[in-house]
Amino acid sequence: MAVYTEVSDEDLMAFVSQYDIGSVRFCKGIAEGIENSNYLLTTDLGPFILTLYEKRVKPEDLPYFLNLMEHLKAAGIPCPMPIKGRDGEALRSLCERPAAIVTFLDGMWPRRIKPEHCDKFGSAMARLHAASDGFPMHRHNDLSMPAWRALFEQTADQADTVRKGLRSDLEQEINYLQSVWPSGLPAGVIHADLFPDNVFFHQGDVSGIIDFYFACDDYFAYEIAICLNAWCFEVDLSFNVTKAKRLLNGYRKVREFNDAELKSLPILARGSAMRFLLTRLYDWLHTPDNALVTRKDPLEYLEKLRFHQGVQGPGAYGLD
Amino acid sequence: MAVYTEVSDEDLMAFVSQYDIGSVRFCKGIAEGIENSNYLLTTDLGPFILTLYEKRVKPEDLPYFLNLMEHLKAAGIPCPMPIKGRDGEALRSLCERPAAIVTFLDGMWPRRIKPEHCDKFGSAMARLHAASDGFPMHRHNDLSMPAWRALFEQTADQADTVRKGLRSDLEQEINYLQSVWPSGLPAGVIHADLFPDNVFFHQGDVSGIIDFYFACDDYFAYEIAICLNAWCFEVDLSFNVTKAKRLLNGYRKVREFNDAELKSLPILARGSAMRFLLTRLYDWLHTPDNALVTRKDPLEYLEKLRFHQGVQGPGAYGLD
Repeated sequence: MAVYTEVSDEDLMAFVSQYDIGSVRFCKGIAEGIENSNYLLTTDLGPFILTLYEKRVKPEDLPYFLNLMEHLKAAGIPCPMPIKGRDGEALRSLCERPAAIVTFLDGMWPRRIKPEHCDKFGSAMARLHAASDGFPMHRHNDLSMPAWRALFEQTADQADTVRKGLRSDLEQEINYLQSVWPSGLPAGVIHADLFPDNVFFHQGDVSGIIDFYFACDDYFAYEIAICLNAWCFEVDLSFNVTKAKRLLNGYRKVREFNDAELKSLPILARGSAMRFLLTRLYDWLHTPDNALVTRKDPLEYLEKLRFHQGVQGPGAYGLD
Repeated sequence: MAVYTEVSDEDLMAFVSQYDIGSVRFCKGIAEGIENSNYLLTTDLGPFILTLYEKRVKPEDLPYFLNLMEHLKAAGIPCPMPIKGRDGEALRSLCERPAAIVTFLDGMWPRRIKPEHCDKFGSAMARLHAASDGFPMHRHNDLSMPAWRALFEQTADQADTVRKGLRSDLEQEINYLQSVWPSGLPAGVIHADLFPDNVFFHQGDVSGIIDFYFACDDYFAYEIAICLNAWCFEVDLSFNVTKAKRLLNGYRKVREFNDAELKSLPILARGSAMRFLLTRLYDWLHTPDNALVTRKDPLEYLEKLRFHQGVQGPGAYGLD
């Protein structure tokens, strides 16, 4: 939860006057998203989301993200659509930050995930992957396997202060993953951060997918692996195979995945656990105690990694 | 800014089903209010505010606050009105906390205060004071002059770590204020926390007054003094006498204040500076570094106190 920037009413009015979205009724900072400042901007035409991009998003990546949302929305994905001003531009500047207004999506993200959420979400993820077909822009995944060693090196010295032996565990696992990382799997645009708080449900269906600011090119199956970690572990970190099975079957109803993808799932799941373990560890060690952001426990992902290390094959995820 | 409690969708639906306010479209935590968790709850009937009362509000005070808002709203004050469920109750429980839904108010609080805001706000404050007439409930101001010595004693040991000499300055000032504190001034219900972020403007007029969770019985002139401190100093802590004059004249257009009130203003302004200096100092010394809440600088109020210590009479506030 974070709102880093206070927008004055004068600045807001001047900003909104560049759009045909009616007149402002109110604008409130919302406790959503930790990378940017988000405001629920309501005009007499209804609610919109105003985002000010704070320093963790690279300005040069913004056209990719905004164009991607526009492409996906046109393909029927319930994602925010960037609103263009009268000058035809969606991206402009407010309070010295890049800023954009996007459409608002009804619904709430599931605080307690039930198997039926996983079913619907699996299908929605597959539709997202299918819909990215034909999107002409590209963005490299700078948090994928080749980046982990450098991330590790920035945390290695202090890793054992978080858990004894962590440094050597991480190094071994990175070596192993590098040696077995699959090649040639079906790839395209992935969201790369499809955690439950980025997926809204309304009346039992997926009503919104938000926060595309990690989207990039990568294996579709890697995204599935991220979601096995994000959606299918219980609060006590036990793995719920029913949820996994429903997520995977929900996905396969929409987009089949081939044998190579299926076989790679355990490695990709270890890899995606490693990715979040490393970034959380980095943030844990480098975020000042008094920061606005609540640090997330890296050891949650160490436990998830250990589960996948013990897996014999994709059957462990409930597949027939 | 704070949202302390995550409300699950099931809990929310069950809660809302006790009201006739339509079906939920979305519910978002908002970055507003630091004492409670506030959510913008939007149903097909429009927006509402859902508040979960966290530990700084005493549950036994809630009927006073909710009844006061109802009384003021009926008297034409643009304040939130508590919504009653089908059982006739406005106060119930959600996530093991007292909770209420109130009506939503359009507008934004002024990030940059201009003299015209002070004019409109002064009149709105006077209407609030007049409208409290006849409200039958009472709440003692437990942060007024008699409470300061005890607050001081809880901070005295560490006061000089914040500013050398602060302990003795505070003690002298409390002794002085106790010896000259006025008696018998016109009194009634005051809001007691009318900072700019609790006052919304829309299209140039006051459109909302929120956050009544410090309201209590006290001198009306004491509230005015709080507002001279909260609205009329610039960011560099210089006193803007034009803003003060417009605030006071705005007030006097609606409710005259008598000679005794006028003469007491410098003392009341010193007192209100002392109240916020002491509570901020207490929070500064007692809030853990990693808390969600951003601590406010107590020394801002030391500077304001010093300004009022140098004042010769109410003329310093721009009165004719």
